[in-house]
Amino acid sequence: MVHNGIEYADMQLIAEAYFLMKNALGFSTERIQSVFSEWNQGELNSYLIEITANILGTIDPHTGEPLLELIGDRAGQKGTGKWTSQEALELGVAAPTIAEGVFARILSGAREQRDLAARLFPAAGGELVVDASEFVEAIRQALFASKICAYAQGFELLQHASDHYEWNLNLSEISKSWRAGCIIRAQFLERISGAYEENPSLINLLFDPYFQEAIESSSTNWRWVVSTATEQGLPVPGFSSALAYFDGIRHPFLWTNLVQAQRDYFGAHTYERRDRPGVFHTDWQEQSLKK
Amino acid sequence: MVHNGIEYADMQLIAEAYFLMKNALGFSTERIQSVFSEWNQGELNSYLIEITANILGTIDPHTGEPLLELIGDRAGQKGTGKWTSQEALELGVAAPTIAEGVFARILSGAREQRDLAARLFPAAGGELVVDASEFVEAIRQALFASKICAYAQGFELLQHASDHYEWNLNLSEISKSWRAGCIIRAQFLERISGAYEENPSLINLLFDPYFQEAIESSSTNWRWVVSTATEQGLPVPGFSSALAYFDGIRHPFLWTNLVQAQRDYFGAHTYERRDRPGVFHTDWQEQSLKK
Repeated sequence: MVHNGIEYADMQLIAEAYFLMKNALGFSTERIQSVFSEWNQGELNSYLIEITANILGTIDPHTGEPLLELIGDRAGQKGTGKWTSQEALELGVAAPTIAEGVFARILSGAREQRDLAARLFPAAGGELVVDASEFVEAIRQALFASKICAYAQGFELLQHASDHYEWNLNLSEISKSWRAGCIIRAQFLERISGAYEENPSLINLLFDPYFQEAIESSSTNWRWVVSTATEQGLPVPGFSSALAYFDGIRHPFLWTNLVQAQRDYFGAHTYERRDRPGVFHTDWQEQSLKK
Repeated sequence: MVHNGIEYADMQLIAEAYFLMKNALGFSTERIQSVFSEWNQGELNSYLIEITANILGTIDPHTGEPLLELIGDRAGQKGTGKWTSQEALELGVAAPTIAEGVFARILSGAREQRDLAARLFPAAGGELVVDASEFVEAIRQALFASKICAYAQGFELLQHASDHYEWNLNLSEISKSWRAGCIIRAQFLERISGAYEENPSLINLLFDPYFQEAIESSSTNWRWVVSTATEQGLPVPGFSSALAYFDGIRHPFLWTNLVQAQRDYFGAHTYERRDRPGVFHTDWQEQSLKK
């Protein structure tokens, strides 16, 4: 199940990379095909990248056009991504990029809403002026960094499920077993397997030295891609949720002190303090009047 | 349950607005308090904005410091936001902003991961040079537009649940009933109630003229806020997932043609075409060799 949840995210991220080359850079299907073929030679090497290149290179025998551009954009699902996301919520694991992969498919199928929205809210964004080859490399890095976050979420879910249900899973072995015969097979899984072999109690894939370095070296370009897509009105829910996940883990002091204060205000749910141990409650209405 | 799911998103969005004023603009707690007090006079008027202003104005009697800044940022939850998100996934409703509200609380509690990540990945982003009052107004618009999207997701979930379970819900009456006594009470609900009274078969709140105009007039500033936060390394998962949701509904041709092609490639799940009716399958491996 978690394999398939990761697969949803992986497919969504690849689709966003294709979408940006097409809509931000205006590349032809043929040109995008050559980019994916090249990417398949590097650290992104995987079955999904390989078949994406093959798909992009396929010509429709009826029209002579690239077949991909004739395919409707309503995506189906069999339920395993949904199940993974529900289980992540159940076990208290942050897996936003996997959930976005599911919501993206759901959204694509809301034909009536989408037709109306396309009429009511016409295209945003102006012409994009960037160096195309630099931006392609930035997309590649955004894809790789986002993919690391999606796999980090999936493997954290496996770890929590293993603890919760007392399965005693060996994450290194699981990663190894996915290298062959399954949809997400990739060189990448070798790295994941190595990371858990090196450190079986690794609490997040991002903290393995190889992945840490990969994220760090990608982060400037990753931000560039997400902010550019945002300004251009091009939705990249996978890339942006992965980046928000990374920045959320990374930021030393999040927004949630306010959430806790609000919960204590309206529901007396109590809060913790940073400067002393214990559990506290404030009568906010009374206290806020004392100035 | 859906009320509480919306409440999670609403609280998260308010917390992100506070977070940006604090971290992007470097505002003092007192200055942020006066912004929220002012916002409570306008279209954001609501119980949650009002108590946020009160919280920001509360001084800790022990230290003389603003109490909010002494509160730990690990947020708790009682499960209703989780349940709403799981049900949205179950019924096939895109509710990413509600789910991000839940994931944000989960992430905030991952103390061990966060401490390590803060050390391994120190702060991103440089100094932000913007006109502070312009950026505050942009944050207000981003908050309002994101809030509309979160409520649109919640009300769409109610509609789907009503259809699925044959509850025959009156969304206008539900919205009216939430105006008093509950956490999300606000003027805003009057507008929602009016929208469904005007058009009981409204398929998405965004299509009501009042909300359509509100989103349109906010969208430039909304994009500015999300792209700036992205560049600065300040996570705003609520704002950015809401914007990706809006752009996802709005965009006439999404990434998902590639997802369908991939599914047909590896699993023969078939696809639809844009240029003719029916259901199709391609032998991609064979076809991609014909060039």
